[in-house]
Amino acid sequence: MHFARTSTHTVWDRTLPPLAELAPGQEAVVDTAEASGGQLDAGSGAQDLTALDFSQLNPVTGPFSIASARPGDAVVVDILEMSVGSWGWTACIPGFGLLADDFTAPHLRISKIGDRSAELLPGLEIPLAPMLGTIGVAPPEPGPHGMIPPRRWGGNMDIRHIGPGARLVLPVGVDGALLSLGDAHGAMGDGEVAGTGIETDATVRIRVDLLRDAAPPTPFVETDARTHRTGRALATTGIGPDLMQASRDAVRALVDQIVARSGLAPEDAYLLASVTADLKISEIVDAPNWVVTAHLPLALLD
Amino acid sequence: MHFARTSTHTVWDRTLPPLAELAPGQEAVVDTAEASGGQLDAGSGAQDLTALDFSQLNPVTGPFSIASARPGDAVVVDILEMSVGSWGWTACIPGFGLLADDFTAPHLRISKIGDRSAELLPGLEIPLAPMLGTIGVAPPEPGPHGMIPPRRWGGNMDIRHIGPGARLVLPVGVDGALLSLGDAHGAMGDGEVAGTGIETDATVRIRVDLLRDAAPPTPFVETDARTHRTGRALATTGIGPDLMQASRDAVRALVDQIVARSGLAPEDAYLLASVTADLKISEIVDAPNWVVTAHLPLALLD
Repeated sequence: MHFARTSTHTVWDRTLPPLAELAPGQEAVVDTAEASGGQLDAGSGAQDLTALDFSQLNPVTGPFSIASARPGDAVVVDILEMSVGSWGWTACIPGFGLLADDFTAPHLRISKIGDRSAELLPGLEIPLAPMLGTIGVAPPEPGPHGMIPPRRWGGNMDIRHIGPGARLVLPVGVDGALLSLGDAHGAMGDGEVAGTGIETDATVRIRVDLLRDAAPPTPFVETDARTHRTGRALATTGIGPDLMQASRDAVRALVDQIVARSGLAPEDAYLLASVTADLKISEIVDAPNWVVTAHLPLALLD
Repeated sequence: MHFARTSTHTVWDRTLPPLAELAPGQEAVVDTAEASGGQLDAGSGAQDLTALDFSQLNPVTGPFSIASARPGDAVVVDILEMSVGSWGWTACIPGFGLLADDFTAPHLRISKIGDRSAELLPGLEIPLAPMLGTIGVAPPEPGPHGMIPPRRWGGNMDIRHIGPGARLVLPVGVDGALLSLGDAHGAMGDGEVAGTGIETDATVRIRVDLLRDAAPPTPFVETDARTHRTGRALATTGIGPDLMQASRDAVRALVDQIVARSGLAPEDAYLLASVTADLKISEIVDAPNWVVTAHLPLALLD
């Protein structure tokens, strides 16, 4: 099945009608729209940023109902393939971004995207590393819920490791899960410090699966080998308005996973994390919730 | 010149007499002591942790006076070579570490260190990635200053990228700079979440240099290609008690360096950081100051 990038929504809401039902094990090809939802195009300039309607940002394609999913289950999403569009935008939007106090004027760069890189500035080619900024399931709390902050249910997590070859595991909050995805980036650094990556359309091939009664406390990722210094990694998340608490949550989730997968005692799992796991700030701009991830080489759990 | 690991100090103090003077361009081989300063050995058990004298932790070898260095200069330290000892310790020390509330009992593991890995637990080999946890210069403020928190002047930054092949640039606060180093780890993850890496003796060959009137606001590192996903990186730091502010400081320092090295406009430098730089939590345990680093691939500045 192939889904068009026009089938989008711009809030999370448990009452949205599903676009389609996917069975566990099924693949789908999903077209996603760039994060402005058509408000910007390859000819836009900085002045167009001041007119952005924030309520239309980060449109996601979906929702997809996952057959038989119910609260407490986990949805597994494998990102099998991903291609991005022919252009992308990167902006400093007034009031948005880590250094919003320093950079108060709108600023926009349009990248021409080639097969392997994107030209952010004349002559400055950025290697492509496609990823999905936003992927998640409907919160069980009655909606609507805005698209900008990520939550326990995923959403705009802006984890650059959610790209081709990665596996994402999300907790299910409502019957059918109601999975949606979008906000592709041609490249993004951990943190997404100015608030944007190379924002672009994409076509994503995914496979979904279901794990009964296996909802993790927060989403986690098994990363592709290309995105971490030591090969594939298990990346747990902490999501919330305080970076210290998010760090604690991510490390607690990692220790629990090490214990569950390896049989190590918790105190040994904690020491293993201390000597081998990397804390990354995945996003620090999607107010009011930040994402810290803790990455452990999966080879250590074999 | 070769300096013994017995020539240590356990506070930062501008009045400490130099061990030796090093001329810009000069190399030295420095032996460093493991972080307990001899309070633990390969036969120690968890009960020995409760008797640790914290005032003796993190001994550093030095200080070295850098000839003609004066406040406002920058000291450059190239880590040319580094070898670690034959054993190391990793511990959960009550009251210390990111999850101190969860892990309240002392716990200790002694690793046997081989040529390429350390056996943290029976059968669990951790690849070696030697690094210096503590390296810095004397603060200009009258001392003594404790060894645990890092400061603008470096110290216990626990940046795992400060290892063989890396270049560290430190601001100079006092005449002669008074450089010291120690606290080697056989391996450590970004964050050092339990508060310890694989703590071990080391022998480090360094070369020092001096940049007149070039003190950075906080230390920065040019990393070795092996420690970042995209090769050598420029890693700026934010150091302080608030992770958000430390993140802002690290990114501001990175934007300034991009502008200075490439000639890009600040707003373009900020966008470049957003799409390519990675925010890492280098340490989150050396109370009261945490270290956030922002890593930009150096290839983008060529």
